[in-house]
Amino acid sequence: MAEPLFDRVAIIGAGLIGSSIAWAARRAGLARTIVAADLDAHVRERVAALGFADEVCERSGEAVAGADLVIVCTPVGVCGAVAAEIGPRLKPGALLSDVGSVKGAVVRDMGPHVPAHVQFVPAHPIAGTENSGPDAGFAELFEGRWTILTPLQSTDPAAVAALRAFWEGMGARVDTMTVEHHDLVFAIVSHVPHLIAYNIVGTAADLEEVTQSEVIKYSASGFRDFTRIAASDPTMWRDVFLNNRDAVLQMLGRFVEDLTALQRAIRWGEGDKLFELFTRTRAIRRDIIEQGQDTAQPDFGRRNAPSGAEHG
Amino acid sequence: MAEPLFDRVAIIGAGLIGSSIAWAARRAGLARTIVAADLDAHVRERVAALGFADEVCERSGEAVAGADLVIVCTPVGVCGAVAAEIGPRLKPGALLSDVGSVKGAVVRDMGPHVPAHVQFVPAHPIAGTENSGPDAGFAELFEGRWTILTPLQSTDPAAVAALRAFWEGMGARVDTMTVEHHDLVFAIVSHVPHLIAYNIVGTAADLEEVTQSEVIKYSASGFRDFTRIAASDPTMWRDVFLNNRDAVLQMLGRFVEDLTALQRAIRWGEGDKLFELFTRTRAIRRDIIEQGQDTAQPDFGRRNAPSGAEHG
Repeated sequence: MAEPLFDRVAIIGAGLIGSSIAWAARRAGLARTIVAADLDAHVRERVAALGFADEVCERSGEAVAGADLVIVCTPVGVCGAVAAEIGPRLKPGALLSDVGSVKGAVVRDMGPHVPAHVQFVPAHPIAGTENSGPDAGFAELFEGRWTILTPLQSTDPAAVAALRAFWEGMGARVDTMTVEHHDLVFAIVSHVPHLIAYNIVGTAADLEEVTQSEVIKYSASGFRDFTRIAASDPTMWRDVFLNNRDAVLQMLGRFVEDLTALQRAIRWGEGDKLFELFTRTRAIRRDIIEQGQDTAQPDFGRRNAPSGAEHG
Repeated sequence: MAEPLFDRVAIIGAGLIGSSIAWAARRAGLARTIVAADLDAHVRERVAALGFADEVCERSGEAVAGADLVIVCTPVGVCGAVAAEIGPRLKPGALLSDVGSVKGAVVRDMGPHVPAHVQFVPAHPIAGTENSGPDAGFAELFEGRWTILTPLQSTDPAAVAALRAFWEGMGARVDTMTVEHHDLVFAIVSHVPHLIAYNIVGTAADLEEVTQSEVIKYSASGFRDFTRIAASDPTMWRDVFLNNRDAVLQMLGRFVEDLTALQRAIRWGEGDKLFELFTRTRAIRRDIIEQGQDTAQPDFGRRNAPSGAEHG
């Protein structure tokens, strides 16, 4: 096997993403030693039992000592506090990164604590499931999925290249964009969709006219897809909305404006407007399948759906 | 094999649902003869090629002659016209049903054309995929899924029992409710979710700040789930919204009210309100999985997700 890319990799926060990075990096031989830090004693116990890290610490400051690559995998809301703790202990020449779903707030909160002798390259893997915690991680999570790097103007290109190699080593495809553009793109493709999924599930749960047991029983008619997204980690998503506020409110404004037009079309019986939109959206689904971003199997290939072309 | 439940079953409209009923009824031996009618010559060609019906007609009036069970599987918007055509030709003692996603409008539009010597039992199978047309159908579509019957006060209980036996014979579970309650329940668990899925996909497609190719490329972060629902049949869904207007507007009003509160919580940084909602919605997902209404596999079991408990 080739030399590992990094001698010592520290993962701060051993949830779904942190544990998946550990599994994937270990499987690909990208790190000689993996150390995981988590403030939660129960999580540390699970890390030890699952065995995806060589060392387990409570404090992030301890975990980063001597590390060549440090990846902060905590919710976005605490990444500033983590940076304050680890900043003074980062090894000269170390590469610091994160996995947060927002990048502006991460740069704002972590940036001031990064010493001059450390290269900081923010990153966002576009991968995950609705599950969370160290038991939810798996080595294949990033395979064929995009990871976005948002290097700053001042970042050494060699550091960006090293982080790209690490993510590609775990099977990811890597893109770069600016911090600001990242936060706009993910407001519309990720944050607002999550918000409206959480919202519709909340609305349905609070109705007087329809019981919660009816909502659950008949959820296969559309609603259940939203509940999967609305089962995502509450802490992570609270932090996303609080920390990408401007872009989320901007995109949400557009969504509500369009929804109001649809509402009006329904009220006034303007079927042609509805039909035009519903035809356009169908084409976008086709593009997503053609570009390999989702399965072509009907109903995501869930049970009841045919698995092949022939059926009957 | 036992005697079939019906001697001659006519299916009006050979799309996803009509063709799936034909496949399922034939597999279970529920009908001696299945006749399918469709106005579209291309659909009739496919029906003949696929072979799920014994006879294929253009006109519904022709197809229902001598039929013991007639199921109208057209979009809701044309069921009144279909009823006007078939009404005078229905066999005395025949059972007439439909599969529409709204029931009030179906009763309003079909009811006046149903002769006194025919029993009309409206029905709604809670099953489907994002695909449509005769090639999309398959025999397993209804297995373990609910079908709702909404009999009228005047309906003969024997007719309801016969239709229940037919759906149970295709593997469905059967429930009954009133027309009015049906339309409220499905406004929130199906119609509004489809509307907001169509809407967010439209919003994302129309942005100037984010390109359509970025939306597609990074859709795995949440958006792609909505595109599946927004790929559903445009004609069917236009008719649903036009024909369940009052209930959809009522539930949409609640959705927007709740969304406005969430928007405000984000603007004012009220993280506790977000966290509380996101925790509640997670519990609803758990209930849906426990009641067998969706797969417990992360990410619906799509590729990249682990298929078993062990991974690494």
